[in-house]
Amino acid sequence: MKKKELLYEGKGKRLFKTADENLLISEFKDDLTAFNAQKKGSEKGKGALNCKISTELFKLLEKNGIKTHLVETISDNEQLVKKVDIIPLEVVVRNIATGSLTKRLNIKDGTVLPFSLLELYFKDDDLGDPLLNDEHCTLLNIASKDELEVLKNEAKKINTILKSFFKDKGLNLVDFKVEFGKDKDGNILLSDEISPDSCRFWDINTNEKLDKDRFREGIGNVKVAYEEVLARILDNN
Amino acid sequence: MKKKELLYEGKGKRLFKTADENLLISEFKDDLTAFNAQKKGSEKGKGALNCKISTELFKLLEKNGIKTHLVETISDNEQLVKKVDIIPLEVVVRNIATGSLTKRLNIKDGTVLPFSLLELYFKDDDLGDPLLNDEHCTLLNIASKDELEVLKNEAKKINTILKSFFKDKGLNLVDFKVEFGKDKDGNILLSDEISPDSCRFWDINTNEKLDKDRFREGIGNVKVAYEEVLARILDNN
Repeated sequence: MKKKELLYEGKGKRLFKTADENLLISEFKDDLTAFNAQKKGSEKGKGALNCKISTELFKLLEKNGIKTHLVETISDNEQLVKKVDIIPLEVVVRNIATGSLTKRLNIKDGTVLPFSLLELYFKDDDLGDPLLNDEHCTLLNIASKDELEVLKNEAKKINTILKSFFKDKGLNLVDFKVEFGKDKDGNILLSDEISPDSCRFWDINTNEKLDKDRFREGIGNVKVAYEEVLARILDNN
Repeated sequence: MKKKELLYEGKGKRLFKTADENLLISEFKDDLTAFNAQKKGSEKGKGALNCKISTELFKLLEKNGIKTHLVETISDNEQLVKKVDIIPLEVVVRNIATGSLTKRLNIKDGTVLPFSLLELYFKDDDLGDPLLNDEHCTLLNIASKDELEVLKNEAKKINTILKSFFKDKGLNLVDFKVEFGKDKDGNILLSDEISPDSCRFWDINTNEKLDKDRFREGIGNVKVAYEEVLARILDNN
């Protein structure tokens, strides 16, 4: 399957049409952005790392009953995926408080939350991805109530699966963001990616950050951290 | 019943203890504040107007089955009220989009919403009263799920009653903010006030603003507008 015209370019990926109208090619970029793209950078090979990590995690989730857009990986940094209409929500699940949550609600950084907190943000760069409640989603025709329930349940299931998986790899899944899309039959599929760009991983023993916060906070060794995450995912011991 | 020591001073009211530990005196202030108290002003007699307006509306709501903290009005600007523990939520119901909503979600000012939108804001000046979803309320121990359902249902009932009442008075109830408290027996009572400080009223024919937006936007004639709202409320034709 070969790339045809560019359909969409986001901050982390490019989506291309293919000869099959129901399939797209998702190309993972080396670009890094943070704070709604106010901070920009690039790490050669980051796209390929995220492509590998996301492929592994999507396969794991598929095995555990989560429907995803992934068909197969076709090169180092390209996936063949089902075409979906993206639901413009950033679905965030948090296990440990850090980042914007700590400032917004004055919760101490590193607080282990008593339950997995789910938040919905409107995927709209111009508006700064504002927090939404369920009624906002209905008002903006983002998703029906039933679709929201599906989204939320899927996101919580994904959290349960990944949290346990990463714990065995010595990583705390601090929080993550996922996106969903609807295929031509109305099925809600996990889309986009799951990678250190969209998750926070802290080493269980040292609390070392192994995710995009290294870029956000200028800690450095971004790619080394992403390589470490991939190595732990692939480690079968 | 006489005022004893000051228990709490807010932006719009002072609460005093009384000889009865279950009763407080709520004194309505002439102060006006907007934009999280960044803009400040005062209108002599505004407190008395809001006290009268709020008393009338709370009585109307009581007649229609809403439990409130109001016992009786004891002077021009003082109410005797049941002592409650305030639930730190600003419960906002919107019928027409204006103010912060239009900016936050890019909705055209004046858009009649397809349903009454309910929003919960954390009553915390230091944090700038951030928007919350239901899970945040549980996380912050603000209210249990059952209590949240009660709050939301009461707020929507209040909207239905007031919207219809004000329509008959030639006013569109654009949006409003209410607060609730729990009495010693755990009953959830409508508390605080309902007035042109906490509601937006637009004349049905002219769309003239008859509420605190006159102060926020520097339109002037604030007190005249509040007097007009009271006159319409008291008009039995």
